Amino acid sequence: MLTLYHSPNSRSTRIITLLTALDVMDQIDIRLTDIPRQDGSGGRDPNNPHPEGKVPFLVTEDGETIRETNAIMLYLCDRFPSDFAPKVGAPGRATMLSWMAWYGNVLEPVFVLNVAEISHPVLTSTFRGLPEAITALAAGLEGRDYLLGARYSVVDLLVASPFLWFPQALPDVPVIKDWVARCGAQPAIAQTAAYEAEAQKSLTEMA
Amino acid sequence: MLTLYHSPNSRSTRIITLLTALDVMDQIDIRLTDIPRQDGSGGRDPNNPHPEGKVPFLVTEDGETIRETNAIMLYLCDRFPSDFAPKVGAPGRATMLSWMAWYGNVLEPVFVLNVAEISHPVLTSTFRGLPEAITALAAGLEGRDYLLGARYSVVDLLVASPFLWFPQALPDVPVIKDWVARCGAQPAIAQTAAYEAEAQKSLTEMA
Ligand SMILES: N[C@@H](CCC(=O)N[C@@H](CS)C(=O)NCC(=O)O)C(=O)O
Ligand SMILES: N[C@@H](CCC(=O)N[C@@H](CS)C(=O)NCC(=O)O)C(=O)O
Repeated sequence: MLTLYHSPNSRSTRIITLLTALDVMDQIDIRLTDIPRQDGSGGRDPNNPHPEGKVPFLVTEDGETIRETNAIMLYLCDRFPSDFAPKVGAPGRATMLSWMAWYGNVLEPVFVLNVAEISHPVLTSTFRGLPEAITALAAGLEGRDYLLGARYSVVDLLVASPFLWFPQALPDVPVIKDWVARCGAQPAIAQTAAYEAEAQKSLTEMA
Repeated sequence: MLTLYHSPNSRSTRIITLLTALDVMDQIDIRLTDIPRQDGSGGRDPNNPHPEGKVPFLVTEDGETIRETNAIMLYLCDRFPSDFAPKVGAPGRATMLSWMAWYGNVLEPVFVLNVAEISHPVLTSTFRGLPEAITALAAGLEGRDYLLGARYSVVDLLVASPFLWFPQALPDVPVIKDWVARCGAQPAIAQTAAYEAEAQKSLTEMA
């Protein structure tokens, strides 16, 4: 069985949403894990095997380990094939890989640099900035409801997540706002919120 | 046929090495592309369809587009299956996905932040720093010659690339130095250098 190290209401929450959308929550051993929180609560969990104490972290039956949300998502989508992600060789696979990498290589860095209010020519040359990321996203949504076409997929789950997490970062671009609203209205998101409320309670009781 | 937008001696050089290692150079239409260079030479190529004028950029027969080196590599390895990368379901696949994402999500950002001499608590919390990245890499190489085991793979090609590009950034950690030397000695690297010398000549003549 796969083991997921998960902390409620964190970046690993998106893995819970994915497992829910894939309908495989019963096929994963989910270990609730403490992490240091922005508000000073929480702390590093000695039971978390992630080398830096982060979540999410996935361990396979054979002891292979995966860090990084986008990598864990790619692995799970291939392991549990479904309509939620294009398989190798299927239409949309190239586009999926591009967005999943872009999320981690570009969107997260420019988001975080924006929060930290840091700008530097070397960073702009490498990542460009939030305006370019917003432009890329808007272009990807032009003429379609979701990034891969007519249906909500793992790509929307990942790429919309920072905007659902920080609504104040949502740009005033109708095509993006409407898409984020559609993503937030998915049943898997509400199911995740319910799961996380319980998980948070269990974690607090364990402490 | 696939089309690759490529600029010699840039981040897209790694895609040439991959195509060489996969022995599929004849299966790609490679379009030599100009980009602005650090030294002020070069400029944005109007024929490059990448939305920000960058390379590498891959376009499929069906018009799907892939940006981001790690995504292009994943796509090519699945499209041209070989011993150079584990297939879906094979041992090493989880580890491969983890390193490929880590490269883009963590190693490139901390490398670039280091070059720009920028540090900030929000960045450290998100990416940690170069010391943690070096520690992760050294741990991954402990007891094996390459990141997936006994053989050079796409993971080594990608993760070793910044150290081959900027030898001055090579940390004084024997297990890493020896691995970078092994990676640099691969035949595909020398073949790429020969290809790039010709490509640079063609690009200069075209200008
Ligand atoms: N790039 C990683 C980031 C993981 C990450 O930073 N997770 C946060 C949770 S929101 C964490 O574990 N923080 C605790 C810490 O940094 O010690 C990913 O996408 O998985
Ligand atoms: N994260 C991207 C970075 C691509 C990138 O920055 N490429 C550089 C070449 S080294 C480029 O095209 N620079 C020209 C420019 O930024 O205009 C990747 O890994 O593919």
